[in-house]
Amino acid sequence: MPRPLLFNAFEMPVPVHQSPGLWRHPEDESRNYASPAHWEREARTIEAAGFHGIFLADVLGLYDVYGASPDAALRGGVQVPQLDPLLLAPLLARATEHLAVGVTASVTYAAPYDLARRFATLDALTDGRIAWNVVTSYQESAALNLGLGTQLPHDERYDRADEYMDVVYALWEGSYEEDAYTADRDSGVVVDPAKVRGAGHHGTYFDVTAPSLTAPTRQRTPYLFQAGASPRGLAFAAKHAEAVFFSGPTPEHVARWTGRLREEAETAGRDPRSVKAFTNVAVVVAETGDAARERLAEYTRYVDVPAALALFGGWTGVDLSDADPDAPLEHVETDANRSALASFTTMDPDAAWTPRRVAEFVAIGGRGPVITGSPEEVADEVERWARVADVDGFNVNACVRPADFERFGRFVAPVLRERGLLEPARGTSDDDAVSSVRSAREVFGGAGPRLPRDHPGAAHRR
Amino acid sequence: MPRPLLFNAFEMPVPVHQSPGLWRHPEDESRNYASPAHWEREARTIEAAGFHGIFLADVLGLYDVYGASPDAALRGGVQVPQLDPLLLAPLLARATEHLAVGVTASVTYAAPYDLARRFATLDALTDGRIAWNVVTSYQESAALNLGLGTQLPHDERYDRADEYMDVVYALWEGSYEEDAYTADRDSGVVVDPAKVRGAGHHGTYFDVTAPSLTAPTRQRTPYLFQAGASPRGLAFAAKHAEAVFFSGPTPEHVARWTGRLREEAETAGRDPRSVKAFTNVAVVVAETGDAARERLAEYTRYVDVPAALALFGGWTGVDLSDADPDAPLEHVETDANRSALASFTTMDPDAAWTPRRVAEFVAIGGRGPVITGSPEEVADEVERWARVADVDGFNVNACVRPADFERFGRFVAPVLRERGLLEPARGTSDDDAVSSVRSAREVFGGAGPRLPRDHPGAAHRR
Repeated sequence: MPRPLLFNAFEMPVPVHQSPGLWRHPEDESRNYASPAHWEREARTIEAAGFHGIFLADVLGLYDVYGASPDAALRGGVQVPQLDPLLLAPLLARATEHLAVGVTASVTYAAPYDLARRFATLDALTDGRIAWNVVTSYQESAALNLGLGTQLPHDERYDRADEYMDVVYALWEGSYEEDAYTADRDSGVVVDPAKVRGAGHHGTYFDVTAPSLTAPTRQRTPYLFQAGASPRGLAFAAKHAEAVFFSGPTPEHVARWTGRLREEAETAGRDPRSVKAFTNVAVVVAETGDAARERLAEYTRYVDVPAALALFGGWTGVDLSDADPDAPLEHVETDANRSALASFTTMDPDAAWTPRRVAEFVAIGGRGPVITGSPEEVADEVERWARVADVDGFNVNACVRPADFERFGRFVAPVLRERGLLEPARGTSDDDAVSSVRSAREVFGGAGPRLPRDHPGAAHRR
Repeated sequence: MPRPLLFNAFEMPVPVHQSPGLWRHPEDESRNYASPAHWEREARTIEAAGFHGIFLADVLGLYDVYGASPDAALRGGVQVPQLDPLLLAPLLARATEHLAVGVTASVTYAAPYDLARRFATLDALTDGRIAWNVVTSYQESAALNLGLGTQLPHDERYDRADEYMDVVYALWEGSYEEDAYTADRDSGVVVDPAKVRGAGHHGTYFDVTAPSLTAPTRQRTPYLFQAGASPRGLAFAAKHAEAVFFSGPTPEHVARWTGRLREEAETAGRDPRSVKAFTNVAVVVAETGDAARERLAEYTRYVDVPAALALFGGWTGVDLSDADPDAPLEHVETDANRSALASFTTMDPDAAWTPRRVAEFVAIGGRGPVITGSPEEVADEVERWARVADVDGFNVNACVRPADFERFGRFVAPVLRERGLLEPARGTSDDDAVSSVRSAREVFGGAGPRLPRDHPGAAHRR
């Protein structure tokens, strides 16, 4: 019997998340990205489709590598205009019954004392269904406008992030004993001060002495996601993250990363299987394989090439704005951009890479595979990916939003359920008491709503 | 015919906002401060009671003057534990039809580029029903834990806040032309870059060159509240605020401030009547005056003296922890605290002030009056206050939450409506099309959802 897999809908409150041009598809609703009712409907669609969670990406800056200007990103709506994902999260949770809600937030923009309060608030307002995608890096264009000066060197950024996590663990896990907040009318005591202690943190980057501003919430520490591939990044992820994202072109490629992740987790003293590995996929599915391939061809016709190259430029630092979109890519290679291009072109070494081909690749698959076919074909490929890559789940990209999520639920989920690869559909509040709603940590396989004992955050408990 | 007045419910997501001890009253529900369903119900109660808006206070630190420790504040639940009010705002708006939602946010904790995105997101998610209470100051205890070092000198803090406002206006008002965001499928253009420009701000405190990350929302700039009483604070408020809060013990006292505010607004080139003046009141009402006074006596018995003195200590810097609660206050006066105490004791110069009397005063009325009586008596006093103080509206404090808001709606609102002092009850979505829902700016008397032409933010428009 295979173990069930985990599925997140990967989203962003923007006109274009990862598929430039596809907003023009007649079924796409991304133009409504700023409407709360749109997001409430979409969250319900995603929940009904069988996803475990919705994950919201974030970037606090504009993509301005392509043509050394944000114009292509603006014209194509590439992750701009946008909303702050944290403010959307409570609405997504209130509109659904048991969907976990993941949000991206950088350890760079807010003081840990402030961000700790925000995530405790989110944990309260979602009744423990919140997950935090911890981001350590940021764009230079964001840093500039946020008044942050130049970035720290790569490894030092992780040192600072390590200390940041220590502070927020001290606040979430160590500050209040379990029964410190009673608000007991007979005793007249709201919080017993003897059961509260200050964070008492004096470090290299932060000094936080006060206790948490928030009482313990259902999870205390939000469920922690992270993405990291460099050696230092992987060590950080293996220490702190409960689930890790990684994109790769083949399951074998991802398997090498998964192996390193599990080794690092073991080195860090954690159960290597307790760290969930997720990889990105795009799924294009229809009743038959032919219909699915036709749909993929249709999607491809909607790709906005300059906009996709603006996204590619932001990811790689390579500006393809001067290149003939249909000329072989070798002509625009320089020493500076060769390795960046290589990270893409090696995904399909036999392809005749041109800027247009890069754009189509980015816009349909992002940095992961596109699984196209009938429901059975897609389920086969999902199963193969999970087995070979040794991942626990997938972040599913939608080219057409939210239609592709709805189609995943309609076509793929039933086949996955038949095979035991997806848990049975969960009841609604009519037949499922609220108290049985799982926290995000339990949705993703945790034994309970709190950090496991072998997690470094648990060391801050009294 | 009198002009209708404006009423905000003054709230905070904490066990105790301004009335330490009153959470023990059998009708009080503040212990549920961390429950989203509690706040959705309360927002609906406040809307049904006829209030124009709900206003959420905020403070990112603990009250630790009393006994040089946060223990009394923790034990009494005085504004701790808490939630981040910004994250609560979208839920309050979604749970109601037309209630304006005001939130407090400091210009100290977030970069203007970040906070501008947050308020644009809130304006989108509330469909233009958001107001921002601009706070320039902060507690030393907050600053310490947020890594902000020592505060700027008072007047320089306002210089920095002035520049901060310039940056956010440039982003909200100047960055996108009205029709820059089209997401037009035929043209394939999401945003026309020719209709977008960078903030281009190079100042003393901030450098923000990029365009806004957000497209124009219904209000663009959120409706702006502020509190300021010092000459520099009043000049800041008169320049930027569309509504200003001020607390005072008598309407005559408040009238002097209102006069100065209107003069300053005129000096700043604005219509002095376009700046709305609000003052704080607590209302204790019942069927008869005697029943109301009995209820006030009952409330007073619930006051938590040390917790109220912890709140008082936070406001004034005066630590009364060593004083006999029933000894005359003169005995604890020192040069250092005489003027701080004076700001309270002059509110009722004939009273025999003791620490207990200060605590009761704080816990029931805060820094404003307590209007107690039958519905007609309360309406009379509200009318007198509005006339003599020349205010446009009131921030109503509830001692028992949310019962006092519900009672205001049940007892006082009908009498105010009879007298033309409160606009008629607004319909629900059944008989009132969503398109007729007013923006916060219109709720508070503006001609439309956008800043008026004579507001300095409007100068950033193209």
